[in-house]
Amino acid sequence: MQDRSVHFWFDFSSPYSYIASEWVEALSARHGRTTRWHAMLLGVTFQAAELRSPVEHPIKRDYSLHDFARSARFEGVPFVQPTPFPIPTHQAARVFWWLDAQDPQRAVDWAHAALRAYFARGVPLNDAAALKALAAQSGFDADAAERAWSDPAWKDKLRQVNQEAIDAGMFGAPYVVVDGEPFWGNDRKPQIERWLSQGRF
Amino acid sequence: MQDRSVHFWFDFSSPYSYIASEWVEALSARHGRTTRWHAMLLGVTFQAAELRSPVEHPIKRDYSLHDFARSARFEGVPFVQPTPFPIPTHQAARVFWWLDAQDPQRAVDWAHAALRAYFARGVPLNDAAALKALAAQSGFDADAAERAWSDPAWKDKLRQVNQEAIDAGMFGAPYVVVDGEPFWGNDRKPQIERWLSQGRF
Repeated sequence: MQDRSVHFWFDFSSPYSYIASEWVEALSARHGRTTRWHAMLLGVTFQAAELRSPVEHPIKRDYSLHDFARSARFEGVPFVQPTPFPIPTHQAARVFWWLDAQDPQRAVDWAHAALRAYFARGVPLNDAAALKALAAQSGFDADAAERAWSDPAWKDKLRQVNQEAIDAGMFGAPYVVVDGEPFWGNDRKPQIERWLSQGRF
Repeated sequence: MQDRSVHFWFDFSSPYSYIASEWVEALSARHGRTTRWHAMLLGVTFQAAELRSPVEHPIKRDYSLHDFARSARFEGVPFVQPTPFPIPTHQAARVFWWLDAQDPQRAVDWAHAALRAYFARGVPLNDAAALKALAAQSGFDADAAERAWSDPAWKDKLRQVNQEAIDAGMFGAPYVVVDGEPFWGNDRKPQIERWLSQGRF
């Protein structure tokens, strides 16, 4: 049977991933599709593709910071540029996969909670105490979350997911795959929408 | 008096510039704005920003080629991926500025003719004979065009324009500036449209 899911690949430190995370489920649902979330580490795919974060480029940085905020306003998504930025997100991502194995919806709830915490309230997802507090606020066992992100099993899982992303040719986030068709970037929303409503174009 | 023009910065070898060149004037006109075209050399701004063309990145290349064609289909613009690609475009750009000094509309006509020739019919804009033939077909004096692209005065003009682009923080094309607000990329069309219809957001 064909895979009808909208696959949403994201990184917890990617502003465009955050913005897209706020529209991807509603858009998919309007077209009778479910969304399957995949937490990945953008830095790993940048490395494989010999790319750097846009904010590391001397000239691109100012424009990018301006565009993050403007693109969020365009979609009506609350956004406050966090500092530090970007941050390592392997802990948040491992918690995602730990929850996903229990119940994918809990993992999605965590993704929303963590993305909103970082990009709307500046909660540093790379800080263990902040991350545990966020887990507790989200109704998860904070100590179990900490054990999960230190567990070699979830480290392995995240490594596998990153490798899967690289093998699929991903080099950025968000990366949406529908019917095998790849769409890179929050700004591919209109094309994804047309694909979902009319099929291949 | 405030500058009400929509400033459209483009490179003759940029697929996204070509796609945007097919909608920018109509969009501006719908909102009572004129479009001011600026031919630049994308490679010069890439160098200043320490960036490379997306097709030079090992993993990004395949996706980019796919996205060029899909983005053209999305906008209903005829597109056939040319080879060789990308190509040096300083001659076409100098002809643009030579014509612009005579009559900006003639320069825009040339821009459309050259972009469509390269991206819809594969005419190599870096080939002197092909470029002269295209100038003649477009109703310009082909020998005068050749003299213009070899003329130190138009070489200087293009260098000035590139420097202006770098000084303004540009690092890619197309680059649209409206009321001082910068928008990078064909995919910023929805944001430009909102800006033109509602003002700052």
